[in-house]
Amino acid sequence: MRHARILPGPNGGAPSVYADWLDAPGRPTVLLYGHFDVQPAEPLTAWRTPPFRATIAGSNLFARGASDDKGQLFIHLKALESHLASGGRLPVNVKIWLEGEEEIGSPNLDAFLDHEIARLRADAVVVSDTEMAGPGRPTIIYGLRGMLACTIEARGPRRELHSGRYGGAVHNPLQALCEIVAGLHDRHGHVTIPGFYDRARPAPLDERRDLRRHAVSDAALLADLGLSSGWGEPDYSMAERVSLRPSLIVTSLCDAGAPAGKAAIPARATARLNVRLVPDQDPDEVAELLRRHLAAVTPSSVRVRLIVTGGAHPVLMPRNNPATTAMVRAVTRTWGVPPVFTRSGGSIAAVERLHRRLAVPVVLLGFGLPDDSIHGSNEKLDLPTFFRGVETMRRFLTEYAR
Amino acid sequence: MRHARILPGPNGGAPSVYADWLDAPGRPTVLLYGHFDVQPAEPLTAWRTPPFRATIAGSNLFARGASDDKGQLFIHLKALESHLASGGRLPVNVKIWLEGEEEIGSPNLDAFLDHEIARLRADAVVVSDTEMAGPGRPTIIYGLRGMLACTIEARGPRRELHSGRYGGAVHNPLQALCEIVAGLHDRHGHVTIPGFYDRARPAPLDERRDLRRHAVSDAALLADLGLSSGWGEPDYSMAERVSLRPSLIVTSLCDAGAPAGKAAIPARATARLNVRLVPDQDPDEVAELLRRHLAAVTPSSVRVRLIVTGGAHPVLMPRNNPATTAMVRAVTRTWGVPPVFTRSGGSIAAVERLHRRLAVPVVLLGFGLPDDSIHGSNEKLDLPTFFRGVETMRRFLTEYAR
Repeated sequence: MRHARILPGPNGGAPSVYADWLDAPGRPTVLLYGHFDVQPAEPLTAWRTPPFRATIAGSNLFARGASDDKGQLFIHLKALESHLASGGRLPVNVKIWLEGEEEIGSPNLDAFLDHEIARLRADAVVVSDTEMAGPGRPTIIYGLRGMLACTIEARGPRRELHSGRYGGAVHNPLQALCEIVAGLHDRHGHVTIPGFYDRARPAPLDERRDLRRHAVSDAALLADLGLSSGWGEPDYSMAERVSLRPSLIVTSLCDAGAPAGKAAIPARATARLNVRLVPDQDPDEVAELLRRHLAAVTPSSVRVRLIVTGGAHPVLMPRNNPATTAMVRAVTRTWGVPPVFTRSGGSIAAVERLHRRLAVPVVLLGFGLPDDSIHGSNEKLDLPTFFRGVETMRRFLTEYAR
Repeated sequence: MRHARILPGPNGGAPSVYADWLDAPGRPTVLLYGHFDVQPAEPLTAWRTPPFRATIAGSNLFARGASDDKGQLFIHLKALESHLASGGRLPVNVKIWLEGEEEIGSPNLDAFLDHEIARLRADAVVVSDTEMAGPGRPTIIYGLRGMLACTIEARGPRRELHSGRYGGAVHNPLQALCEIVAGLHDRHGHVTIPGFYDRARPAPLDERRDLRRHAVSDAALLADLGLSSGWGEPDYSMAERVSLRPSLIVTSLCDAGAPAGKAAIPARATARLNVRLVPDQDPDEVAELLRRHLAAVTPSSVRVRLIVTGGAHPVLMPRNNPATTAMVRAVTRTWGVPPVFTRSGGSIAAVERLHRRLAVPVVLLGFGLPDDSIHGSNEKLDLPTFFRGVETMRRFLTEYAR
């Protein structure tokens, strides 16, 4: 590759990496996107191998980021290396942009693109940061959920209070947060924020039919997770709930830094929420609905505010374009089966932004497996899938040149 | 003092300190109790001075334990030192026992007393580990709330899950705990555990009348705490709620060690509860009621269990006995006013145990002030009160010899 360079992050954010090879005049240009930042590895005690040293065991490689997304972006690099090593050139023009803030919701992405959008211009974007429906079942994701990451902060007394001296007379901010969080769902698993579902486009019947055919069954999913029953909107299967429907997840709830054993009523407590959105929900609009809901339900005994920490729009992408067609051919030749087309419940802020601001197709073909434990402990990458991924991406570059 | 020694803690618990001076034949024996362990100091950033270095500013001494209870037990030591320095002897026989596990609910206290009760035999116990009703208002506490310290653990999927890939299809253990905790009170602030209040003895009218006369008003308490409204059982004042009525406080709620920024559904989450009890509630019985309640309200989508970590019985002590009478005289001569008699919302496991197992009066005269911020950050001790405390205890020893 040429022109490899580190691009500074705007607003003091993490830098990103850019490189290109543009010596195929008359051929299309593809932008390969990935991210090198990872989720925290804690709790470290839950890991069987050191999270920041790659450990091969059997056919798996274990490490934080093995699947999400260092291992997958490495597939792209190895495919390029293969072409360059054998023929000294690439079949198409290639740009690579690797981000460092994906896992915190890409808070500086818009500022970055305001400055760098011209550098990233391409005819299509290809991203490997998603999962396959199962081993040997290559999967093109054409839809991602959006996300609103935010924190509800509750403040009570001006100082921490002894739980005996004051317990029962003041509204514990931690309890108030439990009450607020508990009230965000009804007992059927619907989100209770007024207006939350108004802009959620009903899932088309053909997509629901496709999901029933391709997705893992509730029973198989429950067995994998060690659960006796699922949870959530009763009119939808578990696979539908995590892809075609929005959801609201509390990812942490804590007092302000006090250790767990302390017998005190905290002065302040926070709940972090991770809201996943479907078209045509808008993260800013949902934040505003949540803010209004909080104002309506918060009793006078505590003060509550909402802090928005990140957002991404949901995205649905076209399936009929030269890049997708080239990818279908590459997949079919490498794996012997055509790819499954489905939506994912995850969110990749850059995919929606690049799709909207470059106005070109984004093809998501990921090589993760459902049991990779991404974001969890003992994250792994299946090595046979990795090598077939390299072969697939190598073929894609050739097919896309046609 | 003679025979000062460190006594090992049973079951690997913290050691305690014992000393005595028994050279006053024919005179009564008093046991002085205190504790040298403290609550955690975190969050450290909330302290204006180093929590483990005593810092004098104005008339206050700041440090963790300044008021609860290192500073107060030091009052006893200085009173003894004063007698021994001036006359070479004490007016009565004195035993001192200083505990090291009070702040964690004295989990090994029964085992310790099984072994050491004979060593602690006395005619009365005096404890300074409580607060005064206000500056210049010495206060004898004749009742303490009991305590049940426990942890509710909720388990969900067998591993942490990516919040996008699984959000909306499984019951998040953290959310399930919020729902359970929120359901432990009704909207009037009553605890909803069936049977919880059955054994709570109604507060006598004369005690409620005394509290109205002596205790800080709701308005003054709210102003001190920076709150616009209180919370809790509507038929009781704030002062009554924290002394005559039981309460249930959630003191922490967290997932299993994951950092707050992680976008994952935890496999396991825990809520720590601190339940304060009034006569005749029993910590074991309340734990059993809570266990039954949890079994009844937990949905099949998560598994929940209760882990009891500590307990103390509530206690009401007689007010008419030689030790209390001597203390009233000592207080009245030192402060110019007789002591206020009231109950405290706190719990001191050793007080109830010593009262029951030694079958002698326990006199609680504390020198903390309501704004000492015990268990909170910037804990302090009022030094003028400290010096009058030393004088009070010095006089008590003389009065008790009569």
